[in-house]
Amino acid sequence: MIIDQYCDNENINNVFYQNKVETLLEALPYIKDYFNKIVIVKLGGAIMEDDAGLGNVLNDIVLMKYVGIKVILLHGGGKQITRLMQEKNIEVKFCEGLRITDEKSIEVVKMVLLGEINSKIVSFLNKHGKIAVGVSGNDASFIECRKKQFKKDGKDVELGFVGEITDIDADFINKLLVNDYVPVIATLGSDKYGNIYNINADTCASEIGSKLKAKKMILLTDVDGIKISENDSERLVSRLSINGANKLIKENVISKGMIPKVRACIDALNNGVERTHILNGNHPHSILIEIFTDKGIGTMIVKDK
Amino acid sequence: MIIDQYCDNENINNVFYQNKVETLLEALPYIKDYFNKIVIVKLGGAIMEDDAGLGNVLNDIVLMKYVGIKVILLHGGGKQITRLMQEKNIEVKFCEGLRITDEKSIEVVKMVLLGEINSKIVSFLNKHGKIAVGVSGNDASFIECRKKQFKKDGKDVELGFVGEITDIDADFINKLLVNDYVPVIATLGSDKYGNIYNINADTCASEIGSKLKAKKMILLTDVDGIKISENDSERLVSRLSINGANKLIKENVISKGMIPKVRACIDALNNGVERTHILNGNHPHSILIEIFTDKGIGTMIVKDK
Amino acid sequence: MIIDQYCDNENINNVFYQNKVETLLEALPYIKDYFNKIVIVKLGGAIMEDDAGLGNVLNDIVLMKYVGIKVILLHGGGKQITRLMQEKNIEVKFCEGLRITDEKSIEVVKMVLLGEINSKIVSFLNKHGKIAVGVSGNDASFIECRKKQFKKDGKDVELGFVGEITDIDADFINKLLVNDYVPVIATLGSDKYGNIYNINADTCASEIGSKLKAKKMILLTDVDGIKISENDSERLVSRLSINGANKLIKENVISKGMIPKVRACIDALNNGVERTHILNGNHPHSILIEIFTDKGIGTMIVKDK
Amino acid sequence: MIIDQYCDNENINNVFYQNKVETLLEALPYIKDYFNKIVIVKLGGAIMEDDAGLGNVLNDIVLMKYVGIKVILLHGGGKQITRLMQEKNIEVKFCEGLRITDEKSIEVVKMVLLGEINSKIVSFLNKHGKIAVGVSGNDASFIECRKKQFKKDGKDVELGFVGEITDIDADFINKLLVNDYVPVIATLGSDKYGNIYNINADTCASEIGSKLKAKKMILLTDVDGIKISENDSERLVSRLSINGANKLIKENVISKGMIPKVRACIDALNNGVERTHILNGNHPHSILIEIFTDKGIGTMIVKDK
Amino acid sequence: MIIDQYCDNENINNVFYQNKVETLLEALPYIKDYFNKIVIVKLGGAIMEDDAGLGNVLNDIVLMKYVGIKVILLHGGGKQITRLMQEKNIEVKFCEGLRITDEKSIEVVKMVLLGEINSKIVSFLNKHGKIAVGVSGNDASFIECRKKQFKKDGKDVELGFVGEITDIDADFINKLLVNDYVPVIATLGSDKYGNIYNINADTCASEIGSKLKAKKMILLTDVDGIKISENDSERLVSRLSINGANKLIKENVISKGMIPKVRACIDALNNGVERTHILNGNHPHSILIEIFTDKGIGTMIVKDK
Amino acid sequence: MIIDQYCDNENINNVFYQNKVETLLEALPYIKDYFNKIVIVKLGGAIMEDDAGLGNVLNDIVLMKYVGIKVILLHGGGKQITRLMQEKNIEVKFCEGLRITDEKSIEVVKMVLLGEINSKIVSFLNKHGKIAVGVSGNDASFIECRKKQFKKDGKDVELGFVGEITDIDADFINKLLVNDYVPVIATLGSDKYGNIYNINADTCASEIGSKLKAKKMILLTDVDGIKISENDSERLVSRLSINGANKLIKENVISKGMIPKVRACIDALNNGVERTHILNGNHPHSILIEIFTDKGIGTMIVKDK
Repeated sequence: MIIDQYCDNENINNVFYQNKVETLLEALPYIKDYFNKIVIVKLGGAIMEDDAGLGNVLNDIVLMKYVGIKVILLHGGGKQITRLMQEKNIEVKFCEGLRITDEKSIEVVKMVLLGEINSKIVSFLNKHGKIAVGVSGNDASFIECRKKQFKKDGKDVELGFVGEITDIDADFINKLLVNDYVPVIATLGSDKYGNIYNINADTCASEIGSKLKAKKMILLTDVDGIKISENDSERLVSRLSINGANKLIKENVISKGMIPKVRACIDALNNGVERTHILNGNHPHSILIEIFTDKGIGTMIVKDK
Repeated sequence: MIIDQYCDNENINNVFYQNKVETLLEALPYIKDYFNKIVIVKLGGAIMEDDAGLGNVLNDIVLMKYVGIKVILLHGGGKQITRLMQEKNIEVKFCEGLRITDEKSIEVVKMVLLGEINSKIVSFLNKHGKIAVGVSGNDASFIECRKKQFKKDGKDVELGFVGEITDIDADFINKLLVNDYVPVIATLGSDKYGNIYNINADTCASEIGSKLKAKKMILLTDVDGIKISENDSERLVSRLSINGANKLIKENVISKGMIPKVRACIDALNNGVERTHILNGNHPHSILIEIFTDKGIGTMIVKDK
Repeated sequence: MIIDQYCDNENINNVFYQNKVETLLEALPYIKDYFNKIVIVKLGGAIMEDDAGLGNVLNDIVLMKYVGIKVILLHGGGKQITRLMQEKNIEVKFCEGLRITDEKSIEVVKMVLLGEINSKIVSFLNKHGKIAVGVSGNDASFIECRKKQFKKDGKDVELGFVGEITDIDADFINKLLVNDYVPVIATLGSDKYGNIYNINADTCASEIGSKLKAKKMILLTDVDGIKISENDSERLVSRLSINGANKLIKENVISKGMIPKVRACIDALNNGVERTHILNGNHPHSILIEIFTDKGIGTMIVKDK
Repeated sequence: MIIDQYCDNENINNVFYQNKVETLLEALPYIKDYFNKIVIVKLGGAIMEDDAGLGNVLNDIVLMKYVGIKVILLHGGGKQITRLMQEKNIEVKFCEGLRITDEKSIEVVKMVLLGEINSKIVSFLNKHGKIAVGVSGNDASFIECRKKQFKKDGKDVELGFVGEITDIDADFINKLLVNDYVPVIATLGSDKYGNIYNINADTCASEIGSKLKAKKMILLTDVDGIKISENDSERLVSRLSINGANKLIKENVISKGMIPKVRACIDALNNGVERTHILNGNHPHSILIEIFTDKGIGTMIVKDK
Repeated sequence: MIIDQYCDNENINNVFYQNKVETLLEALPYIKDYFNKIVIVKLGGAIMEDDAGLGNVLNDIVLMKYVGIKVILLHGGGKQITRLMQEKNIEVKFCEGLRITDEKSIEVVKMVLLGEINSKIVSFLNKHGKIAVGVSGNDASFIECRKKQFKKDGKDVELGFVGEITDIDADFINKLLVNDYVPVIATLGSDKYGNIYNINADTCASEIGSKLKAKKMILLTDVDGIKISENDSERLVSRLSINGANKLIKENVISKGMIPKVRACIDALNNGVERTHILNGNHPHSILIEIFTDKGIGTMIVKDK
Repeated sequence: MIIDQYCDNENINNVFYQNKVETLLEALPYIKDYFNKIVIVKLGGAIMEDDAGLGNVLNDIVLMKYVGIKVILLHGGGKQITRLMQEKNIEVKFCEGLRITDEKSIEVVKMVLLGEINSKIVSFLNKHGKIAVGVSGNDASFIECRKKQFKKDGKDVELGFVGEITDIDADFINKLLVNDYVPVIATLGSDKYGNIYNINADTCASEIGSKLKAKKMILLTDVDGIKISENDSERLVSRLSINGANKLIKENVISKGMIPKVRACIDALNNGVERTHILNGNHPHSILIEIFTDKGIGTMIVKDK
């Protein structure tokens, strides 16, 4: 039989498929806009412990990569670290949200970030081609840091191996981007004595984004964004300027864990990142909706006009 | 007022937008598959004279370019040539589908292909960024040809400036692709004496596709593909091997204008192109449906297994 | 017979051939001076309609290219445009030297510039190797322009598709030069909406020359240069500074069609071109004589000391 | 005081320092020989658990890097893996030297190799400059593997996530070498479904060495090399050909854990590695002595003449 | 005075200058033909001692360089060597045309070739731009050689430091050509023990030309080429095939000093050089006439058809 | 016999060899420090006439090259020049340390520098690989100079071909360094008329070092450095700032031949060289001891703090 296959004629002008590709075409203006641009995404929150949810987010990342966006991924892993510390009977202590990280703890941090989370993300992405490379700031010492000095009530607190970034070697990440890889970054840094430090992932995203002049920085978290109480209800702030954000911090509208995230956004904007977003990773495809549709979800913080 | 914008909370988990991006994600396997691959598209048929239709097709091409496909466009312009010849009172003559092209006629061919059609396509594409460059085989003499010898009933027929390709300088087109341009090719060729010839656009697509080892060659035309009569109805052949195609030509099932198209496909497949398609450009988004969905439309001709 | 050829001894020290190569050697200082330098030549005037004359000029250009000069060619085509417009019964209207260019007219402009003149120049040059590539400002949108606003007697005149350059993408032309091609430029530009405009070729030469810091800009025309009346006779001005040129314009010594040419020269000089020339293309080899001998012909305009 | 420092004259012709630099000069022939050559070193044995010893070995590696050798490091971590498995109450099972690696076990393997050992090696090396980058075969999927099929007594044994290399992407490692980094490789591989496998580090060294045509492969272990009993004493075999090695395996002189090491050497030699060595990492500076002096220590296996 | 200069109108169409540039145009076909091609010229004979004559030849070389030919110059310096040896009271001995070169002699050879002749040629060429770099085979050891074994009447003759080429590092010369320099080569070679040898310049030209696939090799000498006696007169052979050359050697028509030159030509042709020439450097511009006109002077040896 | 070689077990932990490699390791901090840095060494003094001594120094240079230092060598050759001038009966005249260099003298200078010394150094270095290329400032005219104007007692002194550097083409030397060659520079310069001049080698080292921002400049000479009389004894100044050096010159502590050396050091420091040294080349391995140990020998001149 020489003819391999027929197709039913009546079906050619198929509306179902036309609708599909028309949806692709609707995304074209956004795709053009982000073509060859850097978008830095920090994965955080509950999504990190939910393999299915994480898989969905990473699938979104793969799409971004293949339509020409230069994606950089960062991740922390707080809850998994706590879990392994408990398993190993290491006391878990925090001081104003900062984990006290002694020598045993930093070993656990490394195991979890590198051996569990980073490699999981990398292997997931690489199912879609040889596209991801896992690194930490220890590789080529590309994130240089020093021990974070911290005072509480006027007294020094010994945080242990908690670091503060002193320099980023943007060139190292650029080499990966130029070779078309998605860098997946575990937010560890090192000093010149070979000590490894745990560093805040939001801050790290902000610093790397600034150095590389990212078009967009997205902090993926568990809440929908910045909320404001009006009468008896809460409303989500969709768009905020640096001035507005600073004012809301001062007025304690933005508080607790949201403060460092907003500060990371402000720093990024002040240092060359175009736009920053705080999104809820638990909503399906929140990143893609943010990037490829006219629907703004979450809170976007932008420069003052 | 420090807050620029609120958004209505209830609306965050919006199904409408989720569906949109899920349609993007459905396209991901196809996008991955074509990433950085060469697809050569020959624009032909009625679409060439219908500005809205042509615009739609070119819009599809822009999407292909921005999701990482290296597109090469070729075009003819038979009807427009005939029209200008008539306007200029030049006699229009054909011999077995080949236009007799004397000195006055080739001038008209050049005017129409370069001054009317090629520049229209280029300017349309460039509305979406500086992405297209119009060329003809005369530029850098990248399509070398000689006068086509043609016999009818054993006697030489003087076709005039109708050319036969003798060499393609693939390097010239590659330089454009490497610089991320979409080459838009008017299918003229030249010989070493500086004569310019009209050459068949289907053949030209096949030869360029072969030289560049294109993943796909698409001939856009006015019919749905190869049709076969069964009982009283016609059925569209969806998939055909080289052997099958040759058999159908021998049995006169494929005939007339379809023969050179099918031959161009067979030559392309024999020289390194992976898959070839004959599609109806009058159906909306036929190229995108072919590439980005599981719906095969038109006739695909492939290598024998 | 083992010896292929003898030569007559007495003839070895042949003065005829020695003289020939000594003429080459006389050109050496000029060749050295222009080695790897950019020279931009605008072809204009009657020469554009005289195939033999044009051929001679292009022959000169080929020599320039092969002795290491980076030549850029620009051309208009006013008379041919007028002729085709008349043939197509489109009314030909000018306003102070500017062609009123409605939608039908710009179609004719494109046909003539791209399909007739540009391709003729390219195919002529390519008889001497794969050296020329024809482009217009529409390709890669490398000449961006907007509609020219024009007032006469205080009232807006609707010029139609007559453009004013807003940006030149010098990089596009540089890529061609680096690959050792002679760019042959039809002076059309485009805006971001995909409209194509006719632009003045002298101005265009000046802007491209400025962006690329050309060593020399030559405007080839029908007159010997700037002439000045003295007593009863006219004398050709051989060398003029910017100041001098401005003064002569003010005093109406330079007038009419010569004014925009001289202004193009002044602009070019003010923006980085070293020397500018107005030459008569009807004198055999005027460009070569200008470049490769100590004979200055035509009018040279230079910077003020 | 204008003079910063005097020096005691009598001391200038100091023999102590002359001897030092003469020792450097003695190393020159070896340095020249290895300049820009690839040496692949697999770290194994007790040294992996002895931080001081490991530090010494890595110090040697730093010297090799700075005198121009392109070093590639591989490491396993068997004992540390066993320890963490016990800590986490996972049963430790082996079958003929191969660790049964179920889902929980591979998680431990990743944690230990990536989070503990690899990052320790990288941070040690980077104390001497930004010279090391830690990777695993999961990064860019550069070590592709499949599940190892294993039979014992004719019956399939389920080894779990124990892999067998199917392909090495040498290009990935080469990019690191070209950028002057020392790749530190955790010997994990991945398949196209995103599964991660533990792979034998000796085999992995052999495969990477072969792909990159290494000049030398050194397997660092706990024994002095291959020993042979003569009369009542044992003698260390200093140099052995492939034929000799195969013969000694057949005669059971080489046995147990030494067999896979010797096989890795033979495979490497058969696929382009010039020389292979089995060295005792517990002797101070064994690698440096092997490379930079005329003293051969350990067992060298070479091609048959 | 605003006008810098007038020119006399009647003089514009000046035939004198037109003739000059027409002579340039006559050279165009030859210039095109040699554009970017390698021509290797060995300077020899009396011209080497006649500064004016040498200057003229080098002037010709400068022209060749500036019209795009990649020129490589080689030179010997026999007579100057003899003169300095005599001045230093070193006995001058030859054996069948080969200079016996003991340790003192090779010192003189180096002084003359490098310190006198090579630097003279380089400084002359560099008057025309930074175009020449002087090298010898000792630089980067790019001409490797061994001591030439020589027998006369069956007995070994001790030639001393006379070398025989064993390898050419074409890459070294190519780097100079790519950087647009004219390599000026003193024909010395070296062995791996650091000994420097005098090598025959004709042979050296042939070997370098072969490695670099030169288009043309020219041996400049004192005679007009190969001459053949007919009746009572001598006739110059203008063109000869390899077969013909071999036959004339066998028949002793070609003899003595001409034999090694002809052999160098034959070797070059057999190894990739297109055409070879023996020219008389004493005739003004012999090289330019050979290359840029239709006048063949001297003897050309070509491949057999 | 399958086993090629045994080794005596008792000997494995050999202290002798361990000491050797530990000496290498002691050099590691210095090797790291100089990795990929430029060190410029001017060879001078008696060492130039002592082949064994010169050989030793060059051996040191080879080591420096192979541990990654980018070495540039310069040499003069005063005594050898004087000797050949005497041999050729040319009168040897100096004026305040400057050699009067007439036309005959500059010929001798070129012969000695290029033909004797430069080629000797190059061939010595190339015994250790294809690592050295000999050049003079005449090559590519990379050292441009003019005739030095010199006055004594208010009257012009005709020094002849003694040059003063006007420009250095650092790019030429950089191309050699990038290709991993050691440039061996004979300190001749040329002017645009093709004249060649003898230039002071210390000054030349200083100018080249400045242009290339060398990390270190070493002037090798016959004395141990700057000495200062204290009581009845002399003490060697080990370290001196620019201020100190200027003061010692003013006070005549530094005098005669040492002045231009110290001035060269000061100029180098003021123009970007990090450290400068005056060392005694007669002490074995003085350069290596200076670079690779903590022993400072000779006088180091550094910037003021």
